[in-house]
Amino acid sequence: MISKVVALAGGVGGAKLADGLYRCLAPGDLSVIVNTADDFVHYGLNISPDLDTVCYALAGLANPETGWGREGETWQAIHNAVQLGGPDWFNLGDRDLGTHLERTRRLRQGDLLSEITSDFARAWGISANIFPMSNDLVATMVSTVDDGELPFQEYFVKRGCEPRVTGFRFAGIETARPAPFMLEAIEGAQVVVICPSNPWVSIRPILDIPGIRQQIQGKHIVAVSPIIGGKAVKGPAAKMYTELGMTPSASTVAGQYGSLLSGFVLDRVDGDQTDKIRQSGIISFATNTLMSTAEDRERLASEVLDFCDRIIGGK
Amino acid sequence: MISKVVALAGGVGGAKLADGLYRCLAPGDLSVIVNTADDFVHYGLNISPDLDTVCYALAGLANPETGWGREGETWQAIHNAVQLGGPDWFNLGDRDLGTHLERTRRLRQGDLLSEITSDFARAWGISANIFPMSNDLVATMVSTVDDGELPFQEYFVKRGCEPRVTGFRFAGIETARPAPFMLEAIEGAQVVVICPSNPWVSIRPILDIPGIRQQIQGKHIVAVSPIIGGKAVKGPAAKMYTELGMTPSASTVAGQYGSLLSGFVLDRVDGDQTDKIRQSGIISFATNTLMSTAEDRERLASEVLDFCDRIIGGK
Repeated sequence: MISKVVALAGGVGGAKLADGLYRCLAPGDLSVIVNTADDFVHYGLNISPDLDTVCYALAGLANPETGWGREGETWQAIHNAVQLGGPDWFNLGDRDLGTHLERTRRLRQGDLLSEITSDFARAWGISANIFPMSNDLVATMVSTVDDGELPFQEYFVKRGCEPRVTGFRFAGIETARPAPFMLEAIEGAQVVVICPSNPWVSIRPILDIPGIRQQIQGKHIVAVSPIIGGKAVKGPAAKMYTELGMTPSASTVAGQYGSLLSGFVLDRVDGDQTDKIRQSGIISFATNTLMSTAEDRERLASEVLDFCDRIIGGK
Repeated sequence: MISKVVALAGGVGGAKLADGLYRCLAPGDLSVIVNTADDFVHYGLNISPDLDTVCYALAGLANPETGWGREGETWQAIHNAVQLGGPDWFNLGDRDLGTHLERTRRLRQGDLLSEITSDFARAWGISANIFPMSNDLVATMVSTVDDGELPFQEYFVKRGCEPRVTGFRFAGIETARPAPFMLEAIEGAQVVVICPSNPWVSIRPILDIPGIRQQIQGKHIVAVSPIIGGKAVKGPAAKMYTELGMTPSASTVAGQYGSLLSGFVLDRVDGDQTDKIRQSGIISFATNTLMSTAEDRERLASEVLDFCDRIIGGK
């Protein structure tokens, strides 16, 4: 039986599977390494969207309608800031603001993002280990056809992923170091699960932190496809593949992760791609991967863990 | 008839009289110079408590119960920050946070506090000119018997004015410059009204900005006593006088402003001090100075303006 798992996750899709794994595993047995290349400063506050999405999901604080932000959220602060002329393109709920305020306060007093994240997780009653991929600043820059290079949140939220993409750059990644204790968590894991997050802008920054790819290469790695029937469940992943001249499909995702993978989980609707994936030496497993409910998350996580078990056992 | 007025104000008491003057004068005829030596950074945000108290009062947005903060306020953000281990000693309402967020955003993009304040006042429909005393950082430091020197908000809010005071220092004041257009507003005024704010920590920093005292000395200046019957209506003014070896009284306040003043307004309960004040060459006027209601503010402001009128007319 699989017990120790490391999951790599970005935003909403990744948070959902991480939450499912969290429900399947014993306290302390799940570590989640979260993309922080989307982090930015807005209204003077340090915002880590993916870290918050993962933590809110695991803590049961997430808004079930949106998948991001807090349940029962109110919008007084941003409403008043916008009334004074402030930008309205990034949603800042009042409850969510409490997280940004305290994160900003602690970063300004010199604490590390990994310490802060760990303390927040504990305060929210989360028994999983939540790691920002790095305490060093890494910033995803999106190259576009018509608007040059855009900071990620400007591309993603302000421009609604509308500009045509030609590539990505992760500023600062060459010198970024894995967060403390993260390599040890990978070392102690039986399997690394790559959650159904955007391979371009959520998973790749994590893998490109010097030291992480090398560390996980010694492990069994299983990825879950974020592309179902040629479409992304949420976000611009499919659009990015098309704009970069690739067919958005589960097998494209599998090919992109390539030799890293021992196994690949794809949706039943893409079951005809298992042969193609097997040709590149990756064992695949088709099931229902759409996570609409909390039960879906737990059921998919459980199936992923069983699949990992079979891979490790060579069955 | 008095029309053009400059008022000097700190927090709640000053904001109430400034609001009364605003209701008595034509649009654009009131300028308020507001203490910013209490400003501080909290949770990474630039907070200007006195500016906000004055603006909220004039805009009709203030909490009528407290005199500070916003009416109908909610507390989701700070509640969540405190739950994560953040400090709880300074109240940050959700609506109020909108002001701090946008002020912080604009300061970080290089705008001046005076421009920001002017834009905020316009957005809130305030037709008075609201000036921060300076765009330069000035920080009130409170010297205490047992705790050394404390930043103002630590003394005032965190410690609840409990430490015994031995003096004050306004860090940065030697090089601080009056906010743009403020000296011109003073030049164009018929009278300067010193609102019933704390003389030690609200009014003195304004007067000590190089250039301001010289500019107002050419004007008729009328102060309203913040001390009624030996007590401060709100805040530590009376306690400060006692700790500094002075009797907290209206005549002590008049003596402290001294030769600056043409006239002094004190409460009816202190009417017996008018003779003593007259001996130092200051004409005084006793009335009901307690402002419990909006009507009180307007009535007192109207009486203050009539008194100024008599002083200017030499009556």
